[in-house]
Amino acid sequence: MNSWMKKLLQVLPEKQILTDLADRYSYSFDASFGEYLPEAVVQVKNNHEVAAVLRVANVYKVPVYPRGSGTCLSGGPLPVKGGIVMDMSQWPEKIEMQPEDLIVKVSPSARTSEINKAAEAYGLMYAPDPSSAHVATIGGNLAENSGGPRGLKYGVTKDYVIGLEVVTPEGKIIKTGGQTIKNVTGYDLTKLMVGCEGTLGVITEATLKLISKPPATQTILVSFSEVRTAGKAISKTLTSGILPAKMEFLDQACIRAVENFQPAGLPIEAEAVIIIELDGHPESLKVEKELIKGIMKQIGAVDIIIPKTVEEAAGIWHARKQVSPAIAKIKPTKVSEDATVPRSRIPDMLDRLNEIKRKYNVEVVVFGHAGDGNLHPNILCDKRDQEEMLRVERAVAELFQAAIDLGGTLSGEHGIGTMKAPFMESELGAAGVDMMKRIKNSWDPNHILNTGKIFSEQGQRLVLRHD
Amino acid sequence: MNSWMKKLLQVLPEKQILTDLADRYSYSFDASFGEYLPEAVVQVKNNHEVAAVLRVANVYKVPVYPRGSGTCLSGGPLPVKGGIVMDMSQWPEKIEMQPEDLIVKVSPSARTSEINKAAEAYGLMYAPDPSSAHVATIGGNLAENSGGPRGLKYGVTKDYVIGLEVVTPEGKIIKTGGQTIKNVTGYDLTKLMVGCEGTLGVITEATLKLISKPPATQTILVSFSEVRTAGKAISKTLTSGILPAKMEFLDQACIRAVENFQPAGLPIEAEAVIIIELDGHPESLKVEKELIKGIMKQIGAVDIIIPKTVEEAAGIWHARKQVSPAIAKIKPTKVSEDATVPRSRIPDMLDRLNEIKRKYNVEVVVFGHAGDGNLHPNILCDKRDQEEMLRVERAVAELFQAAIDLGGTLSGEHGIGTMKAPFMESELGAAGVDMMKRIKNSWDPNHILNTGKIFSEQGQRLVLRHD
Repeated sequence: MNSWMKKLLQVLPEKQILTDLADRYSYSFDASFGEYLPEAVVQVKNNHEVAAVLRVANVYKVPVYPRGSGTCLSGGPLPVKGGIVMDMSQWPEKIEMQPEDLIVKVSPSARTSEINKAAEAYGLMYAPDPSSAHVATIGGNLAENSGGPRGLKYGVTKDYVIGLEVVTPEGKIIKTGGQTIKNVTGYDLTKLMVGCEGTLGVITEATLKLISKPPATQTILVSFSEVRTAGKAISKTLTSGILPAKMEFLDQACIRAVENFQPAGLPIEAEAVIIIELDGHPESLKVEKELIKGIMKQIGAVDIIIPKTVEEAAGIWHARKQVSPAIAKIKPTKVSEDATVPRSRIPDMLDRLNEIKRKYNVEVVVFGHAGDGNLHPNILCDKRDQEEMLRVERAVAELFQAAIDLGGTLSGEHGIGTMKAPFMESELGAAGVDMMKRIKNSWDPNHILNTGKIFSEQGQRLVLRHD
Repeated sequence: MNSWMKKLLQVLPEKQILTDLADRYSYSFDASFGEYLPEAVVQVKNNHEVAAVLRVANVYKVPVYPRGSGTCLSGGPLPVKGGIVMDMSQWPEKIEMQPEDLIVKVSPSARTSEINKAAEAYGLMYAPDPSSAHVATIGGNLAENSGGPRGLKYGVTKDYVIGLEVVTPEGKIIKTGGQTIKNVTGYDLTKLMVGCEGTLGVITEATLKLISKPPATQTILVSFSEVRTAGKAISKTLTSGILPAKMEFLDQACIRAVENFQPAGLPIEAEAVIIIELDGHPESLKVEKELIKGIMKQIGAVDIIIPKTVEEAAGIWHARKQVSPAIAKIKPTKVSEDATVPRSRIPDMLDRLNEIKRKYNVEVVVFGHAGDGNLHPNILCDKRDQEEMLRVERAVAELFQAAIDLGGTLSGEHGIGTMKAPFMESELGAAGVDMMKRIKNSWDPNHILNTGKIFSEQGQRLVLRHD
């Protein structure tokens, strides 16, 4: 047993340290690409245990990889340099409502959907709704600043975090922010932590903002015979003064994949559909529904479906949630991207994706939160096929460049992780990346926390092929 | 002429460097407390000039104090260590609307109210509305993360910034964020910059998010015979499922000060009033107005006034804007605070303020954005009276402690600046402040940018008395 492992045994109960190969293997992957075996897994259950592990790791310069439920799409929890995976999912769940202050205090292990459920009991809502909300922990959502369909109207995880307890890479417990909505006391470490992909500290408690649950919702499904028309319909709606809660795009490949996987009555002849959810006062919804019908007809929609019952509407949204598992059935490997463009450039981005698909002869399906410019092009491939994977690598690189060319960003909501790290400088410039590295270096001088993420190593390139 | 001044002449046109005593004096104060004479004032007009000045200052280790219109209430632009004031107000105004993307690009010199006016031409709104919006520049708002009445429903400046151009303390031009609402590419330097009080970089351009302008508004003025009842009415309203756009509190001293200064028909017999603005769909407003009337009657309001015309409503909001100038007439010196508590603790905070007033025999008037727990207790005094100022110092320190005791924060929207710096550790702990200092040290190793703000020097205490 190596010396840092011996030290771990002094600070944690033995049963919370896993070293068997089978255990370690189950922590070697997430919902993204690649497998990396850690040397040990620690299952932490309170802030003092986190601090103790980090202090040991910092002294022995062992990398530590915090992990929630492992649903990450950008490799956030992958132990790319070995070392320790810090499993936060066994932490006793805490969801402490303070409805009179419109806030809730949660443990990192609380599942996102459970937080929303607790809020709903008081007529409130925790707005961020990543598709993985039923499985993912809030800790992972915080680390990655998760988005979701409702981001269009309500923003992302970061917009709902007002205070954190954080353990620094050197093992000190600090508080950031607080319990008030307005707070300008010192630097905003809260919003720096949220979305830092676990590279600056381990979040051990969060205070989240809640809002009133809207009194009513209205779903609308619109189908199109041309992808570009669907893109224009999105822009047109959003500049009409209406802000839907959700505005999701599915191309024909996604529609057909869902219908093959779990039939939901989506129009399989359509080249694309947009699924809209309006929310608010019932009287406003009546007005907005008619306005949207007008816009869609004018722009040339093929069909506009207004579900007649709550169940029918729920069925449409269930179909949307099935896209990811459904397309995963098409080919063995799925490379999910989330490059994001200003909303007016969605039609152009759809054109660019089409070009890339033809140029590299790769299978690209597109869906996503088109209302905020956040598309999810997914490349379906087979990682055992070296020649195909080389084409996929090139297609992904060009896809990133297309987003940047159109005034967009590499990642809208999944995070940089490992795959996008080599492209950071092309978006931010060397000086921009340097200012980020200065923060990392000053907080984590031994580079133990989630090392190998966000910042690429000298000469690092995107590689999706096996050795 | 000293050597750094000679270098400045090489990088800036001579007429943009002011060294006359009269000029320097007019940059020696802001809307807060204290006067400090700079050695020079530079009027910068583009990002390259900012970079050139910072490079000179960094080499010669001369402090630089960026300044907009000087409306700051926490001393943000005060040149507390002499050196250079960097006046951003002469920069050519740029307000570049991109309505189809719901964004606007602005120069730091753009006045906040002008940005909103440009948005309104497209049926859009720039939501943050600090009371100084007609005078203040967006650059100052960004540096301080300004709030305002609409913060209750719409959030603060930070919530509307998606991208920045920043000059680092060493004179490098970087971009942070971008043009998309969703963006998780690397650390969130945008939200770190907003509210850093100009200590980490100089903002030279900002991309701001716009939202649809709500179709209708409804003002309601409610008067109370007890301050505490008004506090309870706020909590009761906010937990009823209604989220007003604004919810402002004025105590009797403020009401009377306004009526003496510029009569507006406020009820001078009331112990406190709450002014509410609802916004949204006209049908929702009808429903919400009745709900609020019910809540106010039930809780024991003395009177509920619903203005009959748009002009009457505007008159009430104009009266609210007159509070600051009106109370400034009562005594020569005004110490404005903005300690903020969780909304449910507003009645307790009002009690604590009353105790402090009696204990130190100081004149305290209270108004503010009570809906989000952000009160503005103002201590009215005379800075020439050394004995009174000693009592004011003690009252201010106790006021900060009260906010922290109640789970709140030192500053909700004005910033830490110089006066609150000594109290940072009592809210954040030494380790929390240390993590902030690490960022400052790594970005600004020579401590040239707005030095003397946020972080207190060894043994620094609040002193409001003259030598």
